[in-house]
Amino acid sequence: MDATTPVESLKDGIRRFATVRGWEPYHTPKNLTMALASEVGELCDIFRWLTAEESVAVAANPATREAVADELADIANIVFLLSAHTGIDLSEAIAAKMTKNAIKYPPPI
Amino acid sequence: MDATTPVESLKDGIRRFATVRGWEPYHTPKNLTMALASEVGELCDIFRWLTAEESVAVAANPATREAVADELADIANIVFLLSAHTGIDLSEAIAAKMTKNAIKYPPPI
Amino acid sequence: MDATTPVESLKDGIRRFATVRGWEPYHTPKNLTMALASEVGELCDIFRWLTAEESVAVAANPATREAVADELADIANIVFLLSAHTGIDLSEAIAAKMTKNAIKYPPPI
Amino acid sequence: MDATTPVESLKDGIRRFATVRGWEPYHTPKNLTMALASEVGELCDIFRWLTAEESVAVAANPATREAVADELADIANIVFLLSAHTGIDLSEAIAAKMTKNAIKYPPPI
Repeated sequence: MDATTPVESLKDGIRRFATVRGWEPYHTPKNLTMALASEVGELCDIFRWLTAEESVAVAANPATREAVADELADIANIVFLLSAHTGIDLSEAIAAKMTKNAIKYPPPI
Repeated sequence: MDATTPVESLKDGIRRFATVRGWEPYHTPKNLTMALASEVGELCDIFRWLTAEESVAVAANPATREAVADELADIANIVFLLSAHTGIDLSEAIAAKMTKNAIKYPPPI
Repeated sequence: MDATTPVESLKDGIRRFATVRGWEPYHTPKNLTMALASEVGELCDIFRWLTAEESVAVAANPATREAVADELADIANIVFLLSAHTGIDLSEAIAAKMTKNAIKYPPPI
Repeated sequence: MDATTPVESLKDGIRRFATVRGWEPYHTPKNLTMALASEVGELCDIFRWLTAEESVAVAANPATREAVADELADIANIVFLLSAHTGIDLSEAIAAKMTKNAIKYPPPI
């Protein structure tokens, strides 16, 4: 689905979900950032004691990948809410940052 | 740009950036998750001492929003790398998680 | 109890707890840091949607402070394990860092 | 120094440092928790791309351990501020949590 889903439609989806539930007043940039730290902490919980190889296996195994997918979805949704509430276009921000990073980390010749 | 940019093209962009620089061997789910905690920490750094209102102002002010946009871009890129390396389709994971959340948090009647 | 408990005895306590359970092989600085991000995420979960005033009330109210105390204990224990496993004396590290910080942030005259 | 330094004296030290600089109004439990996520993010930055073995080496090598010691000091200081501002005695909270954990994770016979 990622091949055909515009970023905007994911932003619209989570924003509508929040609006219907009356959550928008809580969604300041500060609160959303704190929520992001909380959700990333849950992903850290999955991987903290695993080796690099085990972390690949957890995410690849159909039986265990749902936990990773769920956390990734929560994290992505908060990133989309931050983008929506700040009016920062994610695709533009990424293009601008990668231009900076390409100078900071030039590709090998 | 978010209106016309498919998620996949952002995933492809950051993945290419990393491949050209030989960074892929470092991009295990465990390491990427730790990188995510690091980048989210930088966003927390921007907002930690601010009031809710000030956090809105920082992100809305053209003079200060670039710092927020840069961090948001870094965070989104790691989310996209996690999606790419785990083979978890972000749009699908979000749809699945929101179906669960709609049951957990039913909308008011 | 903080008035009479040396830092070392808290470090010894959690280290013994881990040793008895055979957890020490997992306690590399990398893994412990990731565990710290996970536990701090749980504390973020408690406060994410609260106002400043509500965050004071949660921690002060006998009925709700236990959740905060439990998370704070988990976080402190991982800090103590990091100190024990790296051989970094916490009291010394703090004294050294505060000397640097006193230069960076001089007190008002 | 950890052998002879009571927890309370570290709490008093960082609290005095903050009071002299007029920082106390910012030190709500919510803001301090967000600061903690920020500082833990800096420790994650040090270790994110390292193997378990390399993370041990960084912290053990006199040339590189200072960076780890500095971050650990920052993190510990925020934990101490949280303890001071919430009135949660750290030694007590740890004793209480370890009693719970000993039931949740009984030692092997």
